[in-house]
Amino acid sequence: MAVYTHLGAEVLAGLVAEYDVGALTSVKGIAEGISNSNWLVETTGQDGRGARFILTMYEFRIEIEDLPFFLSLLDHLAAKGCPVPATIHDRQGQRFRLLDGKAVALIEFLPGVSVSLPTPGQAEAVGRVLAELHLAAADFPATRANGMGRAEWQRLATALGEAGLAGIDLGFAELVGRELPDLLASWPQDLPRGTIHADLFPDNVLMLGDRVTGLIDFYFACTDLLAYDLAVTHAAWCFANDGTGFDSGLSRALLSGYEAVRPLSAAERAALPLLARGASLRFAMTRAWDWVHTPADALVTRKDPLAYARRLEFYADPANAAIFDAA
Amino acid sequence: MAVYTHLGAEVLAGLVAEYDVGALTSVKGIAEGISNSNWLVETTGQDGRGARFILTMYEFRIEIEDLPFFLSLLDHLAAKGCPVPATIHDRQGQRFRLLDGKAVALIEFLPGVSVSLPTPGQAEAVGRVLAELHLAAADFPATRANGMGRAEWQRLATALGEAGLAGIDLGFAELVGRELPDLLASWPQDLPRGTIHADLFPDNVLMLGDRVTGLIDFYFACTDLLAYDLAVTHAAWCFANDGTGFDSGLSRALLSGYEAVRPLSAAERAALPLLARGASLRFAMTRAWDWVHTPADALVTRKDPLAYARRLEFYADPANAAIFDAA
Repeated sequence: MAVYTHLGAEVLAGLVAEYDVGALTSVKGIAEGISNSNWLVETTGQDGRGARFILTMYEFRIEIEDLPFFLSLLDHLAAKGCPVPATIHDRQGQRFRLLDGKAVALIEFLPGVSVSLPTPGQAEAVGRVLAELHLAAADFPATRANGMGRAEWQRLATALGEAGLAGIDLGFAELVGRELPDLLASWPQDLPRGTIHADLFPDNVLMLGDRVTGLIDFYFACTDLLAYDLAVTHAAWCFANDGTGFDSGLSRALLSGYEAVRPLSAAERAALPLLARGASLRFAMTRAWDWVHTPADALVTRKDPLAYARRLEFYADPANAAIFDAA
Repeated sequence: MAVYTHLGAEVLAGLVAEYDVGALTSVKGIAEGISNSNWLVETTGQDGRGARFILTMYEFRIEIEDLPFFLSLLDHLAAKGCPVPATIHDRQGQRFRLLDGKAVALIEFLPGVSVSLPTPGQAEAVGRVLAELHLAAADFPATRANGMGRAEWQRLATALGEAGLAGIDLGFAELVGRELPDLLASWPQDLPRGTIHADLFPDNVLMLGDRVTGLIDFYFACTDLLAYDLAVTHAAWCFANDGTGFDSGLSRALLSGYEAVRPLSAAERAALPLLARGASLRFAMTRAWDWVHTPADALVTRKDPLAYARRLEFYADPANAAIFDAA
C-alpha cells in the first residue's frame, strides 16, 4: 500500500482537464497497489452530477510497453459486460498519458469491498466471473508472456539459492528442491490457453454481498493456461491466509461456479493438482524473494512465503488429490 | 500517510451497521494522517442515494481523553456553519466507538482539494475562514491546553540537546539557543484567547477554487491565543515549502481576509512578529525531534526542520517587522 509520488492539486487539476470528465473536486491518495500509486479522484462529471475515478501512476515493475495490453484488455472485457473498470480515454483518445515522465491512467471507479472471509456463495460467484472473463477474452487479439511463469520460478530459486531458501525455513528449501524440477518436467503443454488474470486474490475482487462488482489489478494478466488461472484462484481463496485450514466448501463452490460457465475438459481437470502446485510455488517463490530483500523493519508488510509452501504441500499430498474430482 | 491497521470488509460492515447511514458499498484506505488511519467509506446512505464518510482510527499520540474535545468541537463549528466535517453519531448517540480496543469516529466527507501553490485569493479566503472559526468557537464551552506550547518547545530543546540540534545544522543550534529564551521570557499573556486550530497548513484546508470547503485535522486544536493561530497560518501559507521565498502578496491577503471578519487589536498586531517567531520555533522543534528519531531510510518522509528555522530567522529580522503593519 502506498502513494509514492506527491501530486499537487494544481498538477492534478491540469491532468483531469485533459479528459472530458468535468472539473476536479476531490482527490485522496489511496493505500492500494504495490508497484503503483493510486488516487481516488472526484470530478463534477460530464453532466455536473459528480463522477469518481481511480487515477493510477505506474511507478515500478510495470513496463510501459505492457500498458497497452493491460489497458486495452480492461476496455475489451468491460465492453463485453465483465465487471472490470473501463479506462477513460483522454481528449486525444489515449488510454494513458505521461506525467513527469511517468505513465498515468484514469479508470472507472467501481463499488464493492474485498472480502476477508469469503462464503461459499461468494466463492461460487468468483468462479463464475473468472470463467466469464476467460470466455470474454477469447477474441482479445493481444498476447503477453507470463512474466511470473516457470522460467521465473527457476530464476528466483537459483538467485535465492538453497541457502537463501533454507534461511527462511529448512523444510522450505527441501520442498522447493523436490517440487520445482518435477513441476518443470511435467508441466502440461496442450491445455486450452487464453488471457488470464493470474492474480485473482480476494484483494483484487470487489463484491457487494454475493455479487462480484469488480475485478481489479490486471497487472499480471498474460496469455497462459486457463486452468492455471483457476488454480491460482483456488489457492488464493480456499485456505486461511497462513495456508492452513483448507475449506472444502469454498473449493467446491469455486469449482462449480467456474464450471457452470465454462466446463473443464478431462485433461484440464486431471491437471488441476499439478497446476495448483505450480500456482503455490509461484507465490511462495516471489514472496521468498521479497522476504529476503525487504528489511524486516520496513513499513511494507512482508507476506509470508511459507503460507504458500503450506498450500504446495497440501496440493502435493496424494491424499488431497480428490478435491478436484467432478462433483 | 498511512493506514496502520487492516480492517476486513466484514468488520467494517459491522461497524457501519452501528450507524444509521445505510449499508457499506466501498472502502478505500487513504494516505492521510500521521497519527491515525483513515478510510474513505461509501454507503447506500439513509435515502439509498449513496453517502460518503471518512472513518478515522486513532492510533498514536492522540489521547482518548481528548477525543470528546476534538469531536464536539467539530460538531459545534459545523452547527454554526463553519466548513468543518460534522461527526456522525452512532445509534447510541456516541461520537466515537471502540473497535479492537482503538477509538474510531465516522465523520462527514467534504469535497475540495488541498492547494500546493496558493493564490492571494485563496490565502484571503483562508484568513476569513480562520477568523470565522475563532468567532464561532467563542461560546464553545470545553477547553484543552496546548500540548505543543512553550513548555513543549523547552522540553524538546532540552531533550535534543545542543549536540542534537547542532547535528542537524550548526546554525540551527545557535538560533534555538538565542531565540528560545527570548520567546519564553517575552511571550504575551494578555491577548484574546479562545479555541484555535493550531495546525492550519494548506494540507488541512480543502478548497474549490477560492472557496474553502473544508478545514480538517483538528487534532492539535486547543485553547490558546487567537493571534497565535493566525501566526501559525501565516508561517504555513506565506513561504515556499523550504522556508525561503516569503510572498508578501499572500501575506497581505491572509491578514486582510482575517481582519475583514475579526479585526486585530493593536496589542495583537504588535505581538504578531513575536507570535510568528514562536510558531516557527514550534514546527522547527517538533520536526527536529522527528528528524532525529526517524531513520533516514524509513518510508515516512521526514520534514525538514530547517524550513522552519528559515522562517524563524525571517520573522526575527527587524527588517521584516513591517509585514504585519496595518494595510
